[in-house]
Amino acid sequence: MSLTDRTKPTDVALNTDLYELTMAQGFWESGLVDTQACFNVFFRENPFGGGYAVACGTGQIADLVENFTFDDEAITYLASLQAPGGGDMFKQGFLDYLSDFRMDVDIWAVPEGDVVFPREPLVRVEGSAIACQLLETALLNLVNFQTLVATKTARVVQAAEGHMVSDFGLRRAQGPDGGLAVARASYVGGAASTSNCLAGRIYGIPVFGTHAHSWVMAFPSEIEAFRAFAKSSPKNCVLLVDTYDVRRGLANAIKVAKEMEAAGERLAAVRIDSGDLAKLSKLARGMFDDAGLPYVKISVSNDLDEYTIQSLFAQGAPIDSFGVGTKLATCDPQPSLGGVYKLSATRAAGAVEWSPVIKLSEMAYKRTIPGVQHVLRFRDEAGCPAGDMIVDDSVAVGGTTTIVDVLDPETTYDVSGHDSSELLRQMVEGGRGTEAGRPSLEASKQRCRDALMHLDPAVRRFLNPQIYPVGMEEGLAKLRVDLAREERLHSGRRQEA
Amino acid sequence: MSLTDRTKPTDVALNTDLYELTMAQGFWESGLVDTQACFNVFFRENPFGGGYAVACGTGQIADLVENFTFDDEAITYLASLQAPGGGDMFKQGFLDYLSDFRMDVDIWAVPEGDVVFPREPLVRVEGSAIACQLLETALLNLVNFQTLVATKTARVVQAAEGHMVSDFGLRRAQGPDGGLAVARASYVGGAASTSNCLAGRIYGIPVFGTHAHSWVMAFPSEIEAFRAFAKSSPKNCVLLVDTYDVRRGLANAIKVAKEMEAAGERLAAVRIDSGDLAKLSKLARGMFDDAGLPYVKISVSNDLDEYTIQSLFAQGAPIDSFGVGTKLATCDPQPSLGGVYKLSATRAAGAVEWSPVIKLSEMAYKRTIPGVQHVLRFRDEAGCPAGDMIVDDSVAVGGTTTIVDVLDPETTYDVSGHDSSELLRQMVEGGRGTEAGRPSLEASKQRCRDALMHLDPAVRRFLNPQIYPVGMEEGLAKLRVDLAREERLHSGRRQEA
Repeated sequence: MSLTDRTKPTDVALNTDLYELTMAQGFWESGLVDTQACFNVFFRENPFGGGYAVACGTGQIADLVENFTFDDEAITYLASLQAPGGGDMFKQGFLDYLSDFRMDVDIWAVPEGDVVFPREPLVRVEGSAIACQLLETALLNLVNFQTLVATKTARVVQAAEGHMVSDFGLRRAQGPDGGLAVARASYVGGAASTSNCLAGRIYGIPVFGTHAHSWVMAFPSEIEAFRAFAKSSPKNCVLLVDTYDVRRGLANAIKVAKEMEAAGERLAAVRIDSGDLAKLSKLARGMFDDAGLPYVKISVSNDLDEYTIQSLFAQGAPIDSFGVGTKLATCDPQPSLGGVYKLSATRAAGAVEWSPVIKLSEMAYKRTIPGVQHVLRFRDEAGCPAGDMIVDDSVAVGGTTTIVDVLDPETTYDVSGHDSSELLRQMVEGGRGTEAGRPSLEASKQRCRDALMHLDPAVRRFLNPQIYPVGMEEGLAKLRVDLAREERLHSGRRQEA
Repeated sequence: MSLTDRTKPTDVALNTDLYELTMAQGFWESGLVDTQACFNVFFRENPFGGGYAVACGTGQIADLVENFTFDDEAITYLASLQAPGGGDMFKQGFLDYLSDFRMDVDIWAVPEGDVVFPREPLVRVEGSAIACQLLETALLNLVNFQTLVATKTARVVQAAEGHMVSDFGLRRAQGPDGGLAVARASYVGGAASTSNCLAGRIYGIPVFGTHAHSWVMAFPSEIEAFRAFAKSSPKNCVLLVDTYDVRRGLANAIKVAKEMEAAGERLAAVRIDSGDLAKLSKLARGMFDDAGLPYVKISVSNDLDEYTIQSLFAQGAPIDSFGVGTKLATCDPQPSLGGVYKLSATRAAGAVEWSPVIKLSEMAYKRTIPGVQHVLRFRDEAGCPAGDMIVDDSVAVGGTTTIVDVLDPETTYDVSGHDSSELLRQMVEGGRGTEAGRPSLEASKQRCRDALMHLDPAVRRFLNPQIYPVGMEEGLAKLRVDLAREERLHSGRRQEA
C-alpha cells in the first residue's frame, strides 16, 4: 500500500510496465528520440451492457504529467536491474537520458463528467514516441478505473431516481488508492457523499456514515446503544435497526426519536442492512408515519447495485437513501473498462505532416481508426447530443453533416442542422497542465449531471439501450478504408526484410 | 491517486469509514473508553467457487498499526466537519483524545501465504473497543483485496503447471495502490514476476516485460523493429509476433534469432497476444524447432485466467509462460472477497475474563462464532492439513480430537492421531509489530508454495472441490449453541428499554 510504503508524487514515472522502459531504451538507441507519435485512449464497448460511459480521471492527467520525472531513487532502481540473460538491463547513456527526461507532451481529453462512447478518443496524446510510450501505463491506470466507477455510479444514481447515494466501498477497494479513486469518481458520477474520510480530506467530498452492528452489541440493550448514539451524535443520528429483530429495532428507534424530540433534536434516519429491504422499508415508513415522525428518513444498504435499487422502487419501497459499497467499488459485474492506448499517427523529427497509422486485426472490430483525431459532438435544438463525429482535419472533406459508422461504413447518420462543439479539451500543453486540465471536482460533478440530463433516455436505459451514433467524418472514413486496403496489400511487404 | 495527492504514512488513520469515528466518539462519550473488545476478520465463502484461499496483506498489518496516528492535518480536517443537522460533527474533547491516540492493540493473523478457509479467523484483534473500531476499515481494505488476488494467482499458477506466470495487470488496477497490491499479492500467490516497475522498486519483485505492437508499428517494417529491439535488449529479447500476420511474424523472429546467434546472443522468447493461442503456439513451436531453435520460448497473453490456461494445456499447447493482466488485477469474475469484521467477545475495563458475544441473523449461515478464537491446524503423517479446529481456551473441554462443523453441528471430523499447530501468529503486541509481523516477501512466497503443495488435490481442484474440514472445538461448539439459545430467548429483552 502506498500509504505505508512511503511513495512520493514522482513515483508516477515508475508506476509503469517494464516494457514501456525497454521500448523507450530501444527508441533512444535506434535514434528515434525525436520521432513524434499520436496515441489515443479509447474503449471498444460501453461497460455493463449500457449505452454510455462517463469520463473520469482526465482531470488528474495534468498532475500526472507534471510529476513525471525519474528521480534519483528511480534511476538507482533501474540501474540495479539485471537482464535475464545477464548484464545490465538499462544502459548508462539511457539512464542519463531518463534523468533529464521531461514529459513534454500535448494532451487533449474528454472533460471529467462528460459522456463518452466506444471508439472515440477519451484521451489523445501527442509527443515523442518515447514520451508517449512512457506515459501509457500510468495514463491507463488513471483513467480506466475512474471512468468505469463514474459510469457505474451514474447508473446507480439513475436507478435511485433522485434519492441520495453514498459510496460505502472503501473496505472492498484495492487498497487506499482504490478507495480514493472510488470516492472521487463516484462523486463525479453522481454520488452525494462517501464514507471515506481520507477522500473527504483530500478532495473535499462530503462524508457520511451511521453506526455498525458492533455498536449495538457493545451495550447491554439496543435502546441503550441507540440513546448513547443519539446523545453523542444528535445532529447526525442515523440508527441501524437490524442488529436483532427489525420490528423491535424500529420500535426502539421510535422511542429514541420521541426522546430526541423532547430534547429539541431530530432523529435523521434509520438504516436497514439486511433482510427484505422492500418489505422492511415499508414497515419502517408505516411505523414512523403512525408515530407522527414523517421526517425520519429510511436508508438502506447491503450488496446494492442499480438493479436491486430499480427492483426496490418497482416494489414501491419508500427508501430515501442508499449506501452502495462492494458493487460500486469493484464495479461488479464488470471490474475493468478495457480501455486501450493505440498509435494512430507518426511524424518524423522536424516534419510538419502527420502520417496516419492503422492497426488491422483478425477481428474487424479491433481495427483502429487512423489519424490525429478530434471529436465534434452535434446537439439538437434542446442541447441534447445527437451524434459524435471523429475528425482528422488533414483529410476532412469539409462541411459534411454525415457521420460514417465505424463498424459498418454503409451506415451513416445525418446531423445536418445541428450545431457542434469540440468534445476534447486540451489538458496539457508542452508538458504543463492547462486551466481545463485542472477542473474542480464540483465542476466535473455538475458537468456529469448536465450531460446525463441531456442524454436521450433511450441511450440511458439499462436494457437494450439505443446505440448512440458515433462515427467518422467522411474524409476520415475514406482514409481508413484506403489505409486498411494499403495495409492489407503491403503488410506482407512490411513483414519482408 | 495517492501518488499525486501527496499522502503520507499516517494518513492510514483517515483511510476509514466515517462511522468508525462517530462510533469512537460515542464510546468516548459513553465512558466506554476502556471497554475491551475482540474482533475477527473472516470470510464466509471461498472465492471463485474454489476450495481454499491464500492469506495475504497480513504481513503489512504491523506497519498499518504503527503508523496509525491522527496527525495535525487529520485533526484539522475532522474539526472542520459539520453535522448535517448543524454544529461540529466532532467535539473538541474527542479530538484531543484522538490527538493522543495510540493504536495499542494485540493482533494475531494467518501468516501471508498460508491457506485459510471460510469462517476461521484470518485476523484477530484485541484492544479497546475504540481502537478495534477505528482499525476496522483500514484492516479490511488491506487484507480483503490482497487475499483475493493471492488466491486468484494461486489458481492461475496451479493451472500453469509450473510454467511461469507474470502479473501484467497494472493498467486495469484501481490506481497505483491497486497495482502495487496486485503485484505484491500475486507474487506471494505464485507469480514469478510483475510488469510493474514501482512494485519492483518497493518490494524487490522481479520485473518482466517484452514490447508492444506500437513498437513494431513505429518502424517501416517488422523485421527492422525486431532487429532494433534485439540490438537494444539482446539479453532480454522477447519479440511480439502478432502485430501483422503471426506466421510471417514468426518467420521474421526466426531470421532475427539466427542473426542473434551469429552475434553470440539468444532470442529468449516470442509473445503471442491475439488469435487462437493453442493453434498459434503449436505453429510457433514447430517453426522454431524446425529452424533449430528449440531454446526459444513461447509466451502468451490476452485475457487469460485459470480456465483459459487449463484449456490451452488440455489442447496440448506448448506454452512456456503466461502474462496475466486484467483478470488477475480485477479478480474477475469475483472482484471482492467479502471479508467481514465481527465482534466475538467483550471485557469490562479491568476485568480478566472475556464475555463471548454472538450475532444471530435471519440467515443461519451468517450466525457468528463467539469467543476469543485461535485455530489448531491438524496435519497427517505427510504434513498435509487434515482439518482446522477453532478453539476458545476458556471453554475448551480439553484433549478433544473432534471438530464440530460450523454450519451443521451434527457433522463432526475426527482428527485423532494427528499433530496440530497454531495457525495464527501474533503480528502486533501492544501496538508494536512483532518479528512474525514483518515477514519477508520471499518467505511468504515460500510459505504459499509449501502450503499449496501439501494441500489435498481434491481441495485444490477448480470443479466441485472437496470441502476442507473447518469447525469448532467441542467446548466452543457447545458455547455457541448455548449462547445462540440464550440470545434468542433474551434478544427480546435486549430490545426492551
